[in-house]
Amino acid sequence: MRTRPLKVALLGCGVVGSEVARIMTTHADDLAARIGAPVELAGVAVRRPSKAREGIDPALVTTDATALVKRGDLDVVVEVIGGIEPARTLITTAFEHGASVVSANKALLAQDGAALHAAAEQNGRDLYYEAAVAGAIPLIRPLRESLAGDKVNRVLGIVNGTTNFILDKMDSTGAGYQEALDEATALGYAEADPTADVEGFDAAAKAAILAGIAFHTRVRLDDVYREGMTEVTAADFASAKEMGCTIKLLAICERAADGASVTARVHPAMIPLSHPLASVRGAYNAVFVESEAAGQLMFYGPGAGGAPTASAVLGDLVAVCRNRLSGATGPGESAYAALRVSPMGDVVTRYHISLDVADKPGVLAQVATVFAEHGVSIDTVRQQGKDGEASLVVVTHRASDAALNGTVEALRKLDTVRGVASIMRVEGE
Amino acid sequence: MRTRPLKVALLGCGVVGSEVARIMTTHADDLAARIGAPVELAGVAVRRPSKAREGIDPALVTTDATALVKRGDLDVVVEVIGGIEPARTLITTAFEHGASVVSANKALLAQDGAALHAAAEQNGRDLYYEAAVAGAIPLIRPLRESLAGDKVNRVLGIVNGTTNFILDKMDSTGAGYQEALDEATALGYAEADPTADVEGFDAAAKAAILAGIAFHTRVRLDDVYREGMTEVTAADFASAKEMGCTIKLLAICERAADGASVTARVHPAMIPLSHPLASVRGAYNAVFVESEAAGQLMFYGPGAGGAPTASAVLGDLVAVCRNRLSGATGPGESAYAALRVSPMGDVVTRYHISLDVADKPGVLAQVATVFAEHGVSIDTVRQQGKDGEASLVVVTHRASDAALNGTVEALRKLDTVRGVASIMRVEGE
Repeated sequence: MRTRPLKVALLGCGVVGSEVARIMTTHADDLAARIGAPVELAGVAVRRPSKAREGIDPALVTTDATALVKRGDLDVVVEVIGGIEPARTLITTAFEHGASVVSANKALLAQDGAALHAAAEQNGRDLYYEAAVAGAIPLIRPLRESLAGDKVNRVLGIVNGTTNFILDKMDSTGAGYQEALDEATALGYAEADPTADVEGFDAAAKAAILAGIAFHTRVRLDDVYREGMTEVTAADFASAKEMGCTIKLLAICERAADGASVTARVHPAMIPLSHPLASVRGAYNAVFVESEAAGQLMFYGPGAGGAPTASAVLGDLVAVCRNRLSGATGPGESAYAALRVSPMGDVVTRYHISLDVADKPGVLAQVATVFAEHGVSIDTVRQQGKDGEASLVVVTHRASDAALNGTVEALRKLDTVRGVASIMRVEGE
Repeated sequence: MRTRPLKVALLGCGVVGSEVARIMTTHADDLAARIGAPVELAGVAVRRPSKAREGIDPALVTTDATALVKRGDLDVVVEVIGGIEPARTLITTAFEHGASVVSANKALLAQDGAALHAAAEQNGRDLYYEAAVAGAIPLIRPLRESLAGDKVNRVLGIVNGTTNFILDKMDSTGAGYQEALDEATALGYAEADPTADVEGFDAAAKAAILAGIAFHTRVRLDDVYREGMTEVTAADFASAKEMGCTIKLLAICERAADGASVTARVHPAMIPLSHPLASVRGAYNAVFVESEAAGQLMFYGPGAGGAPTASAVLGDLVAVCRNRLSGATGPGESAYAALRVSPMGDVVTRYHISLDVADKPGVLAQVATVFAEHGVSIDTVRQQGKDGEASLVVVTHRASDAALNGTVEALRKLDTVRGVASIMRVEGE
């Protein structure tokens, strides 16, 4: 074994960074044996240097992250700051000064993955980011290595623990959205400003990353259709139950049937209780992958948290260190397929639509005609009347999002349709 | 991209081999893009050359596998023959003649993994074998790479599809073992001679491989305690249901509480219906991994079959080819921890024991005394009497296998105990 240590700098020392530092110290011998050389924490860039950090030599702590990544003697820079800047500039600078990079930064990877990969390649360095998607769950590596000889057709996942906790709570207790969110906040599962989670921004970033890797195609954050879960109601869960379903916020990356285009989207959807994703409870994450040869695979585990995310970071750190020792680099960006990324209108799926209608003869015929005119085939209809008002629940066969939108627009114009109470996609069948 | 192709020889062209060849041909462009060079099928060693093989140039087919691996111009040899010999000699010869090896051979890896890894290392070549455990499910790579910075404490898995199909059938239909086995055979899930599957030999080989990787310790096939599932009865399933459990054939690799020793075992066990492994149906496989930082992870998918196994083989092939191009090798054997592998007697778990006893006063006291004398603490007892006979179902707290065996031996000597109807371990709590 080489005795000269590999030098690692840590950018950020919050929930994840402090766990990374702790494991690097407490498991130093194991890491050395697995890498083939010791690893040494060479510097830790933080915002508040005065904060006590157990187990970290104060002499290593600096507020000057830029100077740290410019040192020139670093083998690996671990970026766990998050956000776009200064993380982006620091990573690029690290590459230029000879370091490989391990990052947990989903927002940055989703927005600038191509440029960062290019910078890594230009400098002959590695960019690894297992921790950016679904925390501790090995997902990036299985997709880009284990399935490298297969053709992935679909990735369907619960990739945000906060929203899964809220939806699971609504499902199991009958609580409304706000009540469930309040509990998630009180328990520390939701941040004070939960927007990034509940509006699907976090999941959309992960969907962009997963779609890019799965389909060997650049998928930009803007390419991902995004719909949050703040409008999911207890009534939606009741409807889902009647269909033998539950509701999850899903990230869905799909290859179109023609094979020439792909889509990526995040939205709440009904999935059958028999689907493995339906039983993913609390803040856990799980990702279902369908590929041509392997068939259906599922990866399940904690999607966030300091220690789980640190586990993913350290797995990458070991791989990148091994590459440094052998003088090789791991797989870089793979975007050769360059498939067309289609807009949401092209997505084909099933829909569950609740309409408030007038309770009089002929309404169902009118509604059915509108569906037929837009080429959306109806699977089942359920009609419930009370006090001159009635509700009509329509479940469709597979249709494009564009056709469904056209249908709903036309339905709204019918005098007999008082309102469209909810539209929910039905997935996982 | 390099234009000179990497040369790949295929040893074996059965269910898996023919799928590997098919995908290499139909997805040649994708493979080339992902590897960075085209791959060429340079030879296919078979036993029956006269058999028609669609899509394979007859000029590539040979019965002389030894001459093929000695050619000297091969980059990778893919071994999908199975069994110990001639596979072992062919793999060693391939290394000596400069090729890296991808194998799906669990029996050989479990028996001779250390020697094969040594041969690979000595020749500066790769030995990859994702397909040897749980078919298409990425498991070897996540364990040896994704979790390389973590400390795995337990691997708990359903790694044999045949037995899971049989047990699932018994559970869902109330069928007996033989009836369920007959159906599995008729549907092609069980081989004509099902011994390797139902007696747990197949799962034990996988347990040895998984334990070795998870604990960075050599675990020999002989170190794995093995108990088949041929004696599981419909009555056992009825007992399991009463406990809110089902029965699975599990491969369990555990680090002892003291951290200094490990165990590996295969046997049928009750697991709670709430455990993710309980809902793994049919011939699917799933492996639960518990590690210090990542927490609980689960990997799920098809555990066998031509295409799924080929997917795993091809993922390895891409990785090994990339390594050839960069002049590096991937992770080799990691056995530095060299932990003690403890015998079954040291395993600590819970037990469900059914006794046939005389239906008279004082029997329960006698039985309870025997448990106490052996240091096995009782959790619950259920007594059912009929016609002078009674059954006593005891569920214990955690106790060592040795203590349980001592208890059972002493119970058998009691006049009031007519027989021990069944002993089943309770896992996953």
